[in-house]
Amino acid sequence: MTVVHYYAAFAGVSLFGLAVVFTLLSRIKALPVGHEKAAQIAAAIRTGAMTFLKEEYKIIALVVAIIAVIMAYFMSIVAGIVFATGSVLSMLTGFIGMRAATDANVRTTIAAKDKGEHAAFMASFLGGGVMGFAVASIGLLGLATIFYLFSHQQNFVQLLTAFSLGASLVAFFARVGGGIFTKSADVGADLVGKVEAGIPEDDPRNPAVIADNVGDCVGDTAGMGADIYESYVGAMVASVILAVTTYASSGSYLAYLSLPLVLAFCGLIGSVLGLGSNLILKANPAAMLRNATYVAIIGFLILSGSYLFYMGMDMHLFVSIIIGCFAGIFVGLITEYYTGGTPISRLANASRSGAATNLIYGLSIGMESTVAPVILLSLAVLGAYLFGGGLFGLSLAAVAMLATVGITMTVDAYGPIADNAGGISEMAGFGKSVRDITDKLDSLGNTTAAMGKGFAIGSALLAALALFAAYSQQANIGSLDLLNPLIMAGVFIGSTMPFLISALTMRSVSDAALKMVMEVRRQFKEIPGLMEGKADPDYARCITISTQASLREMVLPGLITVLSPVVIKLLLGKEALGGLLIGATVAGVLLALMMANGGGAWDNAKKFIEAGNFGGKGSDTHKAAVIGDTVGDPFKDTSGPALNILIKLMSVVALLLALA
Amino acid sequence: MTVVHYYAAFAGVSLFGLAVVFTLLSRIKALPVGHEKAAQIAAAIRTGAMTFLKEEYKIIALVVAIIAVIMAYFMSIVAGIVFATGSVLSMLTGFIGMRAATDANVRTTIAAKDKGEHAAFMASFLGGGVMGFAVASIGLLGLATIFYLFSHQQNFVQLLTAFSLGASLVAFFARVGGGIFTKSADVGADLVGKVEAGIPEDDPRNPAVIADNVGDCVGDTAGMGADIYESYVGAMVASVILAVTTYASSGSYLAYLSLPLVLAFCGLIGSVLGLGSNLILKANPAAMLRNATYVAIIGFLILSGSYLFYMGMDMHLFVSIIIGCFAGIFVGLITEYYTGGTPISRLANASRSGAATNLIYGLSIGMESTVAPVILLSLAVLGAYLFGGGLFGLSLAAVAMLATVGITMTVDAYGPIADNAGGISEMAGFGKSVRDITDKLDSLGNTTAAMGKGFAIGSALLAALALFAAYSQQANIGSLDLLNPLIMAGVFIGSTMPFLISALTMRSVSDAALKMVMEVRRQFKEIPGLMEGKADPDYARCITISTQASLREMVLPGLITVLSPVVIKLLLGKEALGGLLIGATVAGVLLALMMANGGGAWDNAKKFIEAGNFGGKGSDTHKAAVIGDTVGDPFKDTSGPALNILIKLMSVVALLLALA
Repeated sequence: MTVVHYYAAFAGVSLFGLAVVFTLLSRIKALPVGHEKAAQIAAAIRTGAMTFLKEEYKIIALVVAIIAVIMAYFMSIVAGIVFATGSVLSMLTGFIGMRAATDANVRTTIAAKDKGEHAAFMASFLGGGVMGFAVASIGLLGLATIFYLFSHQQNFVQLLTAFSLGASLVAFFARVGGGIFTKSADVGADLVGKVEAGIPEDDPRNPAVIADNVGDCVGDTAGMGADIYESYVGAMVASVILAVTTYASSGSYLAYLSLPLVLAFCGLIGSVLGLGSNLILKANPAAMLRNATYVAIIGFLILSGSYLFYMGMDMHLFVSIIIGCFAGIFVGLITEYYTGGTPISRLANASRSGAATNLIYGLSIGMESTVAPVILLSLAVLGAYLFGGGLFGLSLAAVAMLATVGITMTVDAYGPIADNAGGISEMAGFGKSVRDITDKLDSLGNTTAAMGKGFAIGSALLAALALFAAYSQQANIGSLDLLNPLIMAGVFIGSTMPFLISALTMRSVSDAALKMVMEVRRQFKEIPGLMEGKADPDYARCITISTQASLREMVLPGLITVLSPVVIKLLLGKEALGGLLIGATVAGVLLALMMANGGGAWDNAKKFIEAGNFGGKGSDTHKAAVIGDTVGDPFKDTSGPALNILIKLMSVVALLLALA
Repeated sequence: MTVVHYYAAFAGVSLFGLAVVFTLLSRIKALPVGHEKAAQIAAAIRTGAMTFLKEEYKIIALVVAIIAVIMAYFMSIVAGIVFATGSVLSMLTGFIGMRAATDANVRTTIAAKDKGEHAAFMASFLGGGVMGFAVASIGLLGLATIFYLFSHQQNFVQLLTAFSLGASLVAFFARVGGGIFTKSADVGADLVGKVEAGIPEDDPRNPAVIADNVGDCVGDTAGMGADIYESYVGAMVASVILAVTTYASSGSYLAYLSLPLVLAFCGLIGSVLGLGSNLILKANPAAMLRNATYVAIIGFLILSGSYLFYMGMDMHLFVSIIIGCFAGIFVGLITEYYTGGTPISRLANASRSGAATNLIYGLSIGMESTVAPVILLSLAVLGAYLFGGGLFGLSLAAVAMLATVGITMTVDAYGPIADNAGGISEMAGFGKSVRDITDKLDSLGNTTAAMGKGFAIGSALLAALALFAAYSQQANIGSLDLLNPLIMAGVFIGSTMPFLISALTMRSVSDAALKMVMEVRRQFKEIPGLMEGKADPDYARCITISTQASLREMVLPGLITVLSPVVIKLLLGKEALGGLLIGATVAGVLLALMMANGGGAWDNAKKFIEAGNFGGKGSDTHKAAVIGDTVGDPFKDTSGPALNILIKLMSVVALLLALA
């Protein structure tokens, strides 16, 4: 097979994936909306989300343009263009996914009202599918094109890295910006609405309620999409780069070089099978989400194993692939335990003595939940390295974990759509039976979101290690000895970075939420008839507060993350930079797990109490749990996810520095 | 100079230090108590504290005996005896310090009532001095004796390590047990007393109030004493071991070998000068605490510099010594900023929108506060290594930071005595003017405690790195390459340990506090006339709850910490164990700083509001800040401090494994 054959296959499957995206889009569009108030609310959410995205993309485009010019000057014009393309494709993916989400949310509500649970589930599931398949197809198509155009050139590795940097940079800004938006709105809405005014979640009298729903779209959908897209691209890029050095003199160079993309190819086909299985089978929503995932993974494993065997390649690599898939599943299951198992009822129990013990116990769950996944992932890394073919094998484990991104991202993106659908139902006044359906779908989404986060962190760790390995190779670092104090200093300094970025993003949420609280309190006081439902609140002002805060606050963390590798390399050298990457990765993964799982546990403990345990809704125990849930919000949806990207973004910057 | 000369000097100054201890003790005893109710309360606190200590020491003695037998079997009977001696000396130090604290607390109260601020300050300061000089003298005397008896023997390094392990093991149990005791009592007392029943802190109607005051003694005094004693011994031991290998063939072998103990000698004399300066000078309490510290450090630097010069030793080592002292001071100042500067007023401001934003903001301060100290300490490590004479220089920086422990520990131990004095004053009904004095002294103690914690963490990091360096040498590890996945896995697994231990200890506090809350609520309901002050609460039951919980819960974290290096060495080998130590140190230092500073910030933000800002006491803002303070309690006084010891305990165990 030649490069052209491979490209034809990759481009073919990507275009097929895009065809799936547009089919899903048209199927969603074809679903009825037919309810004026619901349509109005949905339009308000979409306008808010699109306005934010436009403003956010303007800022990102400016940063991208500056960096592209620098790269064009110091490397080559092509490198600048490739970098910009990587960024634009990421933004495009986020845009498509969010359009679909804002189309699907209201249709889910209407389906719940008119046709029942299954129809509502399918509407949100198909909406999530748009994001899932857009990520998988656009990512593969972009990389395949780089592969086709440049794989024979000297600067191939550099261009791959430039492409990956584009994806990482957009992802970081999208995650941080979207995360600050969604949580400042959510926290602000809850603190005054639920806690002070005693009105339910998503009540239309709450001035921050539209901002809250916009936040679900821009943070949980667009932000998450950019995040996973970045992991997917980053893992493949690191793997291809490792293939370049490992198999340079091998007779099957091209086969190994293209293998990461072949895995993505197999994963995309597996994902289509998973999606298809859900269109044929009918079961309860939870079973359908699980089915689709397992069908996709099994399909992926059969296809990729057969390919390796048929091509006569090193079958040790298949061990790595299997390890990657299973490590992903197990990390997800551990996450499910900590955010859904006995820890939840014990956390709810601890809330009986108030918010303080709820918080202490919740932090303790978050901390404990880091142990099993990190040990498991360490052993996976060891296994993939020792039994699965060294560093290249390790990188393939990362690619394998992400190969079925079409379906895992679908499952992830489904959640916020169901959440939004619930909000629209409440605001449109559809009553309890509709809300019950959307609540059930939403709560299922919370579990899948927690699993998805575990998955995202696991893949981020493996991808970051693969990028680190690629960096060490390209920078000609023979060994990175911890007994050398320069490297030790690098490790320590690197380990502070996730703490710094978490601190900055949490503070941004806290500051913006305080502003939001003051504004909502003001509106409740100054707008006559608001609490009686006779006057409309000023939704737009709340959206503006979140938009301005998030756009202003996302810049500094981005600059720190991008510049820290540059500064350390200049001051302490390339070995210390290697240490910096490891320090940041270690601390980043731990904090990310702690925040994702702690946040999920608080959320679900609150829901557990709301289900009637320990006094149920309105009890003091419930009030304590609401405070824990609010603290968990920026944990799981702002700071934690930003760290997944931080560890890869720093590695990509380092890699590019080594190649400049 | 021969070994005998050195020993004579070390033993002489240690005995002089012990003479200071007994002089201080008799001066405190000579102060009047003359108030029956206050004496009764003080007796109740002392009985509770001594009962706890007895029970705790029984359990520790059992663990020590088992390990001593194992060591006698696998190494030598002498090793077992030396290990047991190290443990017993640590327990003895804690016992002496706590006796003094329980004598000084009530005398501080009486002095405040009868003679005013200066007399009250001196009573608590002298009480702290007993602990400070006991630590400095007993630690030096113990090590000097090992030095005298065994420095010419083959197994000298092994015996030093055994001695250090004894100190570390006792410290870990004392910190964890005492920490769980003090915070379960404190949290329990505050949650029901201050928040639910609306009675003031230390109100005698609160059934948990004696337990709370006992907790200050067993956690903040005995626990802290064992902690610092362990750092002091550990740093010297690591440094002597490094000298053994570095200067084995040098003509001035003995001079270098004894240098760490000479620094302790100089530091002890400096500390006596610092103490003496306070007996002569009279100023406000804050200035006196500062003066004593600076006089001690300056005295130490002059003495140690002159010694190095006089002996014609490598003056590069003096650079390390200076770096160690200044790094300690700067880390302390950074801590002071985060627990006392603008972050506090901003945290108080964030409390205006409730407990959730207070918590988010406080966590953010804790996280941010890790950055500057860790970067500073990394640069100190680099500087001490590069300009100050390699690994031995690095270890001397740790010793230098701890050499003036006599005075730094005095300043630390002063705080809880003043805190206790306030409690006794409240319970004895001495009125506002007495309480104002003790509150002022207590609040000063909070600042010094925060600085002391920064200092403890800084010295723990340096001591842990020195022990790690000693481990690498003794285990014949030539390089610890991060590109080797075994070592990488070790780093990752090690980094989870501080999270696990923090999770376990925080959960213990939460569980025990919940039990305490239920008990206090029960007493308020079931004892007639309690709230009206006509009946006495059942103090003893609350003490029993804290005692049982802390003794039961301290065992598991101890076992995990001691056994994890053993397991990793058996499963993954000595290089992975090296990685484990670094991973644990990195994560441990970050979490310890975050918890110490976050906890201090919450505490002081609450006090800032109580001083009349943002609505003052009783406002919603204040209630929010109280919740933050309560979450911060186990952060700063249970889990955080345990991590300082964890990182050294693991290193000492590893070192012993390498020597077995």
